[in-house]
Amino acid sequence: MDEFSSLPGIGKKTALRLVLFLLRQDDERVERFSSTLLKMKKEIKHCKICHNISDSETCSICSDPYRDQETVCVVENIRDIMSIENTQQYHGRYHVLGGIISPIDGVGPSDLEIDSLVEKARNGNVKEVVLALSTTMEGDTTNFYIFRKMKETSVKVTTIARGVSIGDDLEYADEITLGRSIIHRTAFEDTFGMEG
Amino acid sequence: MDEFSSLPGIGKKTALRLVLFLLRQDDERVERFSSTLLKMKKEIKHCKICHNISDSETCSICSDPYRDQETVCVVENIRDIMSIENTQQYHGRYHVLGGIISPIDGVGPSDLEIDSLVEKARNGNVKEVVLALSTTMEGDTTNFYIFRKMKETSVKVTTIARGVSIGDDLEYADEITLGRSIIHRTAFEDTFGMEG
Repeated sequence: MDEFSSLPGIGKKTALRLVLFLLRQDDERVERFSSTLLKMKKEIKHCKICHNISDSETCSICSDPYRDQETVCVVENIRDIMSIENTQQYHGRYHVLGGIISPIDGVGPSDLEIDSLVEKARNGNVKEVVLALSTTMEGDTTNFYIFRKMKETSVKVTTIARGVSIGDDLEYADEITLGRSIIHRTAFEDTFGMEG
Repeated sequence: MDEFSSLPGIGKKTALRLVLFLLRQDDERVERFSSTLLKMKKEIKHCKICHNISDSETCSICSDPYRDQETVCVVENIRDIMSIENTQQYHGRYHVLGGIISPIDGVGPSDLEIDSLVEKARNGNVKEVVLALSTTMEGDTTNFYIFRKMKETSVKVTTIARGVSIGDDLEYADEITLGRSIIHRTAFEDTFGMEG
């Protein structure tokens, strides 16, 4: 029970329910569960190029020749890769930082995969680095840190667009987002991806 | 009680509470309340230029010589003007449509102040029309309708920026917004309003 309740999002009651459920199952099932856990831990590696999880040395995205090698999207964690992949709108590569700069949690630039990103930008055939971090204070601190580091290279740095969410009623948009959306307004043709 | 409960957001219980409260007050107070209501209804006009509410023929924004006359921000209703004014980021004029195109509610283009907008664009010294409508289906239908109408003029049409809201964790951004944010990514310098 203690093991289960130490997992995120699982309290004591849920842990008890899970334990009682497993006790009711036959031995075989519990063994399979247990060995799958071990196998997962042992066999899943991190891609040496982008630090995504992977079955092999390089992940399926980095080894896909059809994906644009010149564009690298910088994300905080693996979950963000999954979110962006789900949108089916991005066809470049990724780079997982493994967190964002957060003095309050004791996370500094050296704890993150920033040096390896700069190295990649300096030596590879990367043309654009897309910063896809949270639009929070920590995210922007990290954005600025990376931007400054990137100045040593000739790589173009972009960020994901910020503005009013799609499907949002203007009435419910927050003041800061709305203000920014007005300043950074876009040509109608660009907003809707029209030609000329 | 019926009068009060016919107001939006006021149910029977609240209406009763308000009525009992007013009964407890002295005559003078109730008279003042009643005459203020009448005065409000009688004296508040709509600006003949932008259709905002106003004390006079033209509202304080339209008659302010320091506000940019060449930029007109198109909004659904007066509440949106207030939201945008609160951001303190916009210094042009407005144009209130009085709604958005919504076939389901029986609102068509002719019910809105669209012709007067096109007229304004054609005859005035307007250079840019900023569409600040909700990013919903109805909002976009209206956006496209106005855009097509504006083609007859030489006015530039822009929309407010769309993307991940400020302060948002990427994890909670919806798929469509995130996908759009990646496609419409912006140069780092533009995102943070830096010079060159």
